[in-house]
Amino acid sequence: MSDASDDIPALLNGSMGQTIPVLAHMGLEVIEAAPGRAAARVPMDGNGNHVGTMYAGVLFSVAEMLGGALSLATFDPARFYPIVKDLRIDFRRPAASAITARTSLDRAEIDRVLADAERDGKGQFTLASELTDEDGTVVATTEGTYQIRPH
Amino acid sequence: MSDASDDIPALLNGSMGQTIPVLAHMGLEVIEAAPGRAAARVPMDGNGNHVGTMYAGVLFSVAEMLGGALSLATFDPARFYPIVKDLRIDFRRPAASAITARTSLDRAEIDRVLADAERDGKGQFTLASELTDEDGTVVATTEGTYQIRPH
Repeated sequence: MSDASDDIPALLNGSMGQTIPVLAHMGLEVIEAAPGRAAARVPMDGNGNHVGTMYAGVLFSVAEMLGGALSLATFDPARFYPIVKDLRIDFRRPAASAITARTSLDRAEIDRVLADAERDGKGQFTLASELTDEDGTVVATTEGTYQIRPH
Repeated sequence: MSDASDDIPALLNGSMGQTIPVLAHMGLEVIEAAPGRAAARVPMDGNGNHVGTMYAGVLFSVAEMLGGALSLATFDPARFYPIVKDLRIDFRRPAASAITARTSLDRAEIDRVLADAERDGKGQFTLASELTDEDGTVVATTEGTYQIRPH
């Protein structure tokens, strides 16, 4: 049997066509969403560009959406919703296979963000992510600023 | 009668389903691609998120692809191809309508990039873009680093 947090990726994947249809169309799959951790994967098929590598906007998306997945699994969604403020992506190598993006937020940061959100009405944090291809090569990295805000 | 540069948006739009199918699926339309100028538009329909605004990855894409459209119209595509090195997007307001992204590169920069590409095998430049909604409100801005390289 799985506990509730094991089901978050399944819940996110099952509702993607309704919540963010563009991500569903990309074939994006959330593979991990747990307190302080998130990962997602996109296939190469359908996501290429005119030179046969993965389109930049797909790489951006698989990394950017981790902020939402991590927030949902880390901060009570009945109390807080996440927003993205900015994101920078650095393209390091051509991406020519399925790509997995991963990010994490440590316990001290989670506590700080929660305290800020409760005190100030918003808790801001930075997520760094790494995007790797099927060979484990880092094809891109991102750094994004997110906030959680009370409903 | 139109000259060749008038037809660049039509050529890009007509081939989008083959070149970058993700952009075709977003309904992205190149509305200007001329030496030193590019603009593109995405509809709201199908591009939303779970809170009813435009998904961040769509905003990224409509701005990012301007680097390719501008390069194609500005630097001889028989000699050079463009790549994106990095891009930062700042989300300023919720986007809840069709969005238009615009960018430009002045004549002196174009000449400098061309000279660098011919001398060094790459010409690097920064493009700033502004994304506006149907009311003219700036919903996001981007700054991206691109290069043209000889084939």
